[in-house]
Amino acid sequence: MKMANMLVSTLREVPAEAEIDSHKLMLRAGMIRKMASGIYNYMPLGLKVLKNIEEIVRQEMNDAGAQEFLASAILPAELWQESGRWDVYGEEMFRLKDRNNREFCLGPTHEEVFTDMARNEIKSYKQLPVNLYQIQTKYRDERRPRFGIMRSREFIMKDAYSFDKDQEGLDVSFDKMNEAYVKIFNRCGINAKCVEADSGAIGGSNSAEFMVKSEVGEDDVVFCNACDYAANMEKAPSTVDKAEKEEAKELVKTETPNIRTIEELTSFFNTSAKKFAKTLIFNADGKIVAVMVRGDREVNETKVSNDLGGIAQLEMASAEDVFKATNAAIGFAGPIGIKIDELLVDEEVANMYNFIVGANETGFHLENANYGRDFEGKVGDYRNITIGEKCPACGSEITIARGTEVGHIFKLGTKYSETMKATFMDENGKDKPFVMGCYGIGVTRTMASVIEQHHDEYGITWPLALAPYHVSVIPVNIKDEEQMEIAEKLYNELRALGVDALLDNRNERAGVKFKDSELIGIPMRITVGKKIGDGEIEFKLRTKEVEVIRVEDVINKVKEEFKKNNFKL
Amino acid sequence: MKMANMLVSTLREVPAEAEIDSHKLMLRAGMIRKMASGIYNYMPLGLKVLKNIEEIVRQEMNDAGAQEFLASAILPAELWQESGRWDVYGEEMFRLKDRNNREFCLGPTHEEVFTDMARNEIKSYKQLPVNLYQIQTKYRDERRPRFGIMRSREFIMKDAYSFDKDQEGLDVSFDKMNEAYVKIFNRCGINAKCVEADSGAIGGSNSAEFMVKSEVGEDDVVFCNACDYAANMEKAPSTVDKAEKEEAKELVKTETPNIRTIEELTSFFNTSAKKFAKTLIFNADGKIVAVMVRGDREVNETKVSNDLGGIAQLEMASAEDVFKATNAAIGFAGPIGIKIDELLVDEEVANMYNFIVGANETGFHLENANYGRDFEGKVGDYRNITIGEKCPACGSEITIARGTEVGHIFKLGTKYSETMKATFMDENGKDKPFVMGCYGIGVTRTMASVIEQHHDEYGITWPLALAPYHVSVIPVNIKDEEQMEIAEKLYNELRALGVDALLDNRNERAGVKFKDSELIGIPMRITVGKKIGDGEIEFKLRTKEVEVIRVEDVINKVKEEFKKNNFKL
Repeated sequence: MKMANMLVSTLREVPAEAEIDSHKLMLRAGMIRKMASGIYNYMPLGLKVLKNIEEIVRQEMNDAGAQEFLASAILPAELWQESGRWDVYGEEMFRLKDRNNREFCLGPTHEEVFTDMARNEIKSYKQLPVNLYQIQTKYRDERRPRFGIMRSREFIMKDAYSFDKDQEGLDVSFDKMNEAYVKIFNRCGINAKCVEADSGAIGGSNSAEFMVKSEVGEDDVVFCNACDYAANMEKAPSTVDKAEKEEAKELVKTETPNIRTIEELTSFFNTSAKKFAKTLIFNADGKIVAVMVRGDREVNETKVSNDLGGIAQLEMASAEDVFKATNAAIGFAGPIGIKIDELLVDEEVANMYNFIVGANETGFHLENANYGRDFEGKVGDYRNITIGEKCPACGSEITIARGTEVGHIFKLGTKYSETMKATFMDENGKDKPFVMGCYGIGVTRTMASVIEQHHDEYGITWPLALAPYHVSVIPVNIKDEEQMEIAEKLYNELRALGVDALLDNRNERAGVKFKDSELIGIPMRITVGKKIGDGEIEFKLRTKEVEVIRVEDVINKVKEEFKKNNFKL
Repeated sequence: MKMANMLVSTLREVPAEAEIDSHKLMLRAGMIRKMASGIYNYMPLGLKVLKNIEEIVRQEMNDAGAQEFLASAILPAELWQESGRWDVYGEEMFRLKDRNNREFCLGPTHEEVFTDMARNEIKSYKQLPVNLYQIQTKYRDERRPRFGIMRSREFIMKDAYSFDKDQEGLDVSFDKMNEAYVKIFNRCGINAKCVEADSGAIGGSNSAEFMVKSEVGEDDVVFCNACDYAANMEKAPSTVDKAEKEEAKELVKTETPNIRTIEELTSFFNTSAKKFAKTLIFNADGKIVAVMVRGDREVNETKVSNDLGGIAQLEMASAEDVFKATNAAIGFAGPIGIKIDELLVDEEVANMYNFIVGANETGFHLENANYGRDFEGKVGDYRNITIGEKCPACGSEITIARGTEVGHIFKLGTKYSETMKATFMDENGKDKPFVMGCYGIGVTRTMASVIEQHHDEYGITWPLALAPYHVSVIPVNIKDEEQMEIAEKLYNELRALGVDALLDNRNERAGVKFKDSELIGIPMRITVGKKIGDGEIEFKLRTKEVEVIRVEDVINKVKEEFKKNNFKL
């Protein structure tokens, strides 16, 4: 494309609305523009990158034997009522009514649609396995849309759904998707680690996320320093730090006026946080549940929620509910005499001796509490793992980093097919529910994540496979006939080879053109300037120094770069 | 693709929900499935065709110098309030609110978005012209969604918007789009005629539609039998059929008990419908307007609406409003003594003598009415042209056919840029509004229209460029090793050439495979059967007879077909 005919929307200033690098750079390079909070338009350069990512996803999905499908974005409420998710989904779902007052939503995900399709179209085990995917626009009314297209309300997702006749089939389908995902993220030049993820109420180790390390990530990812183990914090099991055994002492009620937090308590009692057990009170779908963890630990709400059988909404109890349970102000809850529906006790707490708990009386705590003697509850793993704890796989030390989820693969099993009565006829003529998997990639989020990993102080540094254009050819002075002639010739030669080239024939200073090329992140730059009189031009890789080369060598130079990047022209 | 691994959803029965051929065939061939009224999912075969059409559109738009863009489907109400269309759009617009109660719509069209983009991104005349397009999902809550994807509520449209500095620039942009559209519809193998269309309140001959003749079309298209003239009925000017001059006679009030319709009146008065003038009463955005046409003519609401200055809603007046205007029941309205805001008189009526009109009194008509003597109004062209009238271009006879609009190109001028203050700086440093054009193609509707033009009793007959697969290779007996080996070999050779081939390796009778291949509309079929022992196979074009040819000739045969169709492999 010739840039004089292009809408170029680069910005020199850093836009105030952006917090993170990818968002800033996508705005500055003129790739996206905001339409409303969490809703973006893709400008021509941004859309080219997006299409390149989509094409990589499409090729790998097809190669893995999946077939492309396209469902509507508007979905009838009936389908979601059938699966039971219409009432559960909450405010994140965009809902609307048509002119006849029929209820619809904008699909935040499509399990129901594909399950419905399978039950209508797949009759026999002979037709299985089937894996269908789509690259489609999804809608989630996020409470806090942020970071540009990293977390937006209208976004593009590749979602795939596999249908197998049994668990073994699902395992094969799942592994194929896992392999395809590794290839996709590799081809996108993104370092995405496959980590164990929580699979909610379905249970089992049936879910894996592809995580990109990122300071602005929304998840904590647990990595082992020694082995390959990696898991989402939600999922990673903690190990019990057993306290030294002590003889049980007598319970003592101590006045602790206005002393509520662990910091205040350690200071007041002049002891370690390890001598305290916190009692946190939750509202779990209307049930009041207390969870006890050691003073220096954090409750893992996913573990709690799964333990309770996969509840829809777990939130801190209201002050009123806390008062009903403890007869005390917030900060003085404890396990002894508490009036709740269920008490969950972290294993670590059950292994402590003579520890301090709230007295369920405003201004008082109890010393020398002991599990078993003073109270009982359901004992389990209810807390987050912490840095330095043992790796669940090899026992070495783990570390924790922030991460962004770019992909998720999930063994659904028969959760949807049973609820929605989606069955096929098996070898023995019996109706069986499909064994399903689902597999998502956030396409637009992947685009942002690539930029997070590929940029420098001058702009984006696209991998060749994703770049909106491969090469920019820049005549320094468009009024110089020889420069323009050579530049046009190179541009045409490159295009004839299948290279997506840009000719920057704008009437602008060379400095402006260089800056735009770097900001947009074109991998190669060919500058035709004064040296063309001696048959020389400048060749520059986006992240390397300028080389002065003979004009007759430049096409080979470009070809070499494609070869190095395994990119077939 | 190997069909044993494919989800094949062909149906033998004709689905009850479908009325027209394209809809029936898309359901039977497993191309689409209904999700809700007017909302469809695209199955793998249907999506492949859709992508082929999209790619043709994309190539031609790019070749015409347009750049691809992608706007969100969710659009903030503010933008539509700014253009004034939020309140005007009516029930056809899907509206929704987000969790913070902010109002949005699902974009039925995107003039506002692109005008907003232009005012933000284009500062100077130096950046013009710019033409941006998108291939994107649109939403219109049609009162009567029908005919499958021919008229649906969620559909894919290519919409483009051009920005020029002046009218001459717009003329050039418009002509380029016109040319691109001709190429697109030609490449899709569809016979779409460019016809003059109404351009509403903007006026001028600034709008053209691409119409496909179709019995189920929603528009009447006027064609000249002699010259190239074609226009939408809404637009085509009528000619005045002048009545023979008569001396004006005295007005006579005649009792016409229960005689209301033109049929009843011609019978009662024993005279031709040409001796009557109908007076129809409308509510035009709250104004009461009467329109008079000859007894055998039909009011053209578009012409009336344009004459009134482009009103939003023109509908028949309520019985109550008719009574207020005429002091009579419906069927007795006339121009004399009527109490309305405006009277519009078709030219033909102004050229009639001693004609019969309603008396504005229940049960009475007036004979010998004459324009000028008995009443006056605004005289103009307010009626539909009829078969046999004169062509506005050459004077020959015109004919009328039903048609479906697949494309629309439109000179908007400064309608949106003025309202939304979208300006650029011209050569003299002055702010000027962009001169805009907009250009739409119904991509999904085009797909249906192609089928309407390309099918027979056995199924769809896709043009090669659109077919989901080019060739189906059918081994008659998959248990015969030689047949399977040759079939696989041919399949692989074809794929290596770039031919999108299907191998029907399903364990089904040959008859089933032939039927599916015909129903789906694969342009070429290669059958490997018993004759393979003699080195022979069957080659069949979808709409031709079977040929028995040598197996070594088949690849060339396929190549020839591509050549004939100007399709580069």
